[in-house]
Amino acid sequence: MIGMKFSIGLQYEVLNCPADFIFNVHAAETAGQRIVTERLSISQNVHQEMYVDPFYGTRYLRLNAQPGPLSLEYEATVEITHAIADPSQLHEVPIAQLPLEIMRYIYPSRYCQSDRLGKFALQAFGHVPPGFSRVQAMIAWILERTTFQSGTTNSSTSATDTLLEQRGVCRDFAHLLIALCRAMNIPARFVTGIDYGADPALGPCDFHAYVEVYLSGRWYLFDPSGVSIPMGLVRMGTGRDAADVAFATVFGAIHSWSPKITIDPIHDPANGYDMPTHTAQALCSC
Amino acid sequence: MIGMKFSIGLQYEVLNCPADFIFNVHAAETAGQRIVTERLSISQNVHQEMYVDPFYGTRYLRLNAQPGPLSLEYEATVEITHAIADPSQLHEVPIAQLPLEIMRYIYPSRYCQSDRLGKFALQAFGHVPPGFSRVQAMIAWILERTTFQSGTTNSSTSATDTLLEQRGVCRDFAHLLIALCRAMNIPARFVTGIDYGADPALGPCDFHAYVEVYLSGRWYLFDPSGVSIPMGLVRMGTGRDAADVAFATVFGAIHSWSPKITIDPIHDPANGYDMPTHTAQALCSC
Amino acid sequence: MIGMKFSIGLQYEVLNCPADFIFNVHAAETAGQRIVTERLSISQNVHQEMYVDPFYGTRYLRLNAQPGPLSLEYEATVEITHAIADPSQLHEVPIAQLPLEIMRYIYPSRYCQSDRLGKFALQAFGHVPPGFSRVQAMIAWILERTTFQSGTTNSSTSATDTLLEQRGVCRDFAHLLIALCRAMNIPARFVTGIDYGADPALGPCDFHAYVEVYLSGRWYLFDPSGVSIPMGLVRMGTGRDAADVAFATVFGAIHSWSPKITIDPIHDPANGYDMPTHTAQALCSC
Amino acid sequence: MIGMKFSIGLQYEVLNCPADFIFNVHAAETAGQRIVTERLSISQNVHQEMYVDPFYGTRYLRLNAQPGPLSLEYEATVEITHAIADPSQLHEVPIAQLPLEIMRYIYPSRYCQSDRLGKFALQAFGHVPPGFSRVQAMIAWILERTTFQSGTTNSSTSATDTLLEQRGVCRDFAHLLIALCRAMNIPARFVTGIDYGADPALGPCDFHAYVEVYLSGRWYLFDPSGVSIPMGLVRMGTGRDAADVAFATVFGAIHSWSPKITIDPIHDPANGYDMPTHTAQALCSC
Repeated sequence: MIGMKFSIGLQYEVLNCPADFIFNVHAAETAGQRIVTERLSISQNVHQEMYVDPFYGTRYLRLNAQPGPLSLEYEATVEITHAIADPSQLHEVPIAQLPLEIMRYIYPSRYCQSDRLGKFALQAFGHVPPGFSRVQAMIAWILERTTFQSGTTNSSTSATDTLLEQRGVCRDFAHLLIALCRAMNIPARFVTGIDYGADPALGPCDFHAYVEVYLSGRWYLFDPSGVSIPMGLVRMGTGRDAADVAFATVFGAIHSWSPKITIDPIHDPANGYDMPTHTAQALCSC
Repeated sequence: MIGMKFSIGLQYEVLNCPADFIFNVHAAETAGQRIVTERLSISQNVHQEMYVDPFYGTRYLRLNAQPGPLSLEYEATVEITHAIADPSQLHEVPIAQLPLEIMRYIYPSRYCQSDRLGKFALQAFGHVPPGFSRVQAMIAWILERTTFQSGTTNSSTSATDTLLEQRGVCRDFAHLLIALCRAMNIPARFVTGIDYGADPALGPCDFHAYVEVYLSGRWYLFDPSGVSIPMGLVRMGTGRDAADVAFATVFGAIHSWSPKITIDPIHDPANGYDMPTHTAQALCSC
Repeated sequence: MIGMKFSIGLQYEVLNCPADFIFNVHAAETAGQRIVTERLSISQNVHQEMYVDPFYGTRYLRLNAQPGPLSLEYEATVEITHAIADPSQLHEVPIAQLPLEIMRYIYPSRYCQSDRLGKFALQAFGHVPPGFSRVQAMIAWILERTTFQSGTTNSSTSATDTLLEQRGVCRDFAHLLIALCRAMNIPARFVTGIDYGADPALGPCDFHAYVEVYLSGRWYLFDPSGVSIPMGLVRMGTGRDAADVAFATVFGAIHSWSPKITIDPIHDPANGYDMPTHTAQALCSC
Repeated sequence: MIGMKFSIGLQYEVLNCPADFIFNVHAAETAGQRIVTERLSISQNVHQEMYVDPFYGTRYLRLNAQPGPLSLEYEATVEITHAIADPSQLHEVPIAQLPLEIMRYIYPSRYCQSDRLGKFALQAFGHVPPGFSRVQAMIAWILERTTFQSGTTNSSTSATDTLLEQRGVCRDFAHLLIALCRAMNIPARFVTGIDYGADPALGPCDFHAYVEVYLSGRWYLFDPSGVSIPMGLVRMGTGRDAADVAFATVFGAIHSWSPKITIDPIHDPANGYDMPTHTAQALCSC
């Protein structure tokens, strides 16, 4: 079991008129992730409304803020229990056996135009043995080509852009892996969290985006940008791509500052808390 | 109440290897649309599996077909009861009051890149009085510019393409209206059906795509391509855009022929069946 | 020396109003290509105006046609004298030594967005020995991935589309090769001609598009779609990409029919006319 | 007559290996623009090579710089003599009368995909009286919609992006105007210079991009971003779009700093030098 303690600090200035915010910064409540403690504090005394997606456990917080400063601080401790599998035992599920409610994860979405990449993916990965190792081959292929570089992409950058221009941030790596999986009819989805374990040279601790791929009937974690220790990832949002799970969606005129984020594992083997480590095993946290 | 009787005939040749098909040709079962009779016939004696989306009533039929001819014939009679509203009473729902589970319909999707069109939509429609009439203004704007023309677009054509090139088919008109609505933070979604009432000059009766927009807490019907009589539309699929509700998704090598489709209203006032007519009222069928 | 005899028949119906046509169907007059005989016949008795590009020898014919049928028939015999080089002796010219007037051929153009493909090309071809063999490696790479398939692309399809979707016609293959060359700072340009030697299974004889690459101070011929015998190519237009050298540009409302084209080599060794054959040598015809 | 005195300071650090530079910072030598004095200084003692485009007078300077700092300082005084015309007398030239060597300026280019905008432009501007006023109507239309905003676009942003997203810098405004003109078969080209007269609130004096449109047989100046006083524009490069006339093209790994630019008119009426002022007249400087 992994215990992670993290905090998120967001800072805004709402200009002139009230603005609506929808935040997805709460840890998700899932079978694999239990909220031990959490605390939210909002600097403005405004009505808060929470929606929990029944399917994913994603929690959306909505509030209507008044002009002036707005800060949000959230901190939580979560327990993550991973189902662990032997990668060599994980297979791709044939179309004929895919649960129909997850078909949506082989369809294209805003940032993952898998409909355009069918031939491309088949040419590049059709000869690779299917299963977990094919997804790993895709990641190796992406990492070999793509440079992690802040400031080179923006909120309209999509998987085809990243494939052509070969640079981006975690979100772009995630979109490209998702698009390639879907192009091979492997369901894949987008997850947001925090990048525990990232090399400090890449900048301060930040929101992270990674991928879940559906194999042998479950969703397994992959971090195509390779910057995090997947075992330490805390799940916040789950969706088809970044369009579904922005950490903050703002309706109105504001200024914002960079998020302040900390994350630390709980190292307490006596109580069953192990340190997150890189592993060759397949991990499932949902 | 409207009664519609329709039939769909699909014809394929499966080449060499078995192929998986997912069809969405069944009439949806919703509060506003009741299945009176239906009959499905598949030329191959293969296992069929049905999935009903609990949210939309969309029905997906999956089957794994053997090499050789495959034909599907579906016919049904449905009763559609529209909630009718006075357009002038329908308002846009402020972000702060939108049910959070429908936020997804203001987010961008594969074919509706509303994230790129915020300024465009505000410039074109920001001054138009909000509500039903704003959606109508968008449709008038689209129709004034866009030519309905088969063969000019394909399955990767999106709303931004249509905005630039100003031509397309019903699906393209629908995507553009959806993108413009979402760019104004008005939830909008994609619906498939059959184009009852279309001018025969546009070709034989065909699958149709249209739009639902969320106003005053309900989803109202709009047909931005203007070719159908909305009151006669039979709902099959509902989704974020065409990526979610293809009438047929095929995995494998096949040949296909044009669908054969008929649709007729039941004219039987004595039993409560009225003819679909154009109306200035707002219609809701879900 | 190669002698080629060819004919082009074009057929239009000009609707309602007069229409302007600019044709580029004349064989170019270059150092390597001599016009032996030619004959042009236009069905309408209208003013004709010819412009010869001083740089390329491309000939543009303009005429203003009246409503009604318009047909153009052009036939010519040309003598092509190729400079032949040993591929292993051809090197890429360093930027510092490139004639500045050909810098334009390393800049991006409408259909060859080489500015987006710098990293891509370097990753795929940076390790390949430079020179003629690198261009050949690019062509092999394109042919391995890309399917020659009529009707899958249109007049706005560009090199990045072809790279992603991996299908197209000769023009798309040419644009992709040009974009990859320019992305590696190798000057490359677009040439139009007729596809002598194409497999009849690909359809009737047609206009063709191919590529010239600047190596060791001259422009060498490459046919990235691999359908023609390069030695038999008759040059019509030369430009940065297809935007410059359409065989016909029409301003006005017309109907058109498929071109009728024939091309035959003159086999007359006694008079110095050899048959075009596939060769491992590098060919230059300008 | 206008006299303009300007200076350009560029600063680079060449990393590790020698790098090639191609600069286009010299004032062009044209019929309308005479170089009175000029001085170039390069911090490295390296071979310099100059190419003057015979058609436009654009001057390209090439040098191969060694690792370490590289600075370029150019200053010049130029005399600009504008041909002045009454806008109401300027007409669009029919296709049948356009000199064929300028047809290239109605064809699409890398950043001006006019081939996709034919219907769009016709719908928006087809009803506007042709001539100078139609170009002005296009500019008014662009300015009404588009926000001048640094940092929102990059070197691969094109006219269709700007049309959709409605923001950009001078280069983007220029590309959009060019694309709209060409879509209406009005020849238009891209010019680079320096933004004399810009509001200091938009930032320090900088390189500028503007447009020439071919009317009544000459090229007239337009500044679609509206930030400069066109009469004071000093011409450096002229081309189909930004792909042709970057002020600096670098081949190699470097760091660069923001250009330092000054520009001042010579106010000396006694010697025939007038101040540049906004004017309702049409100006031609080539």
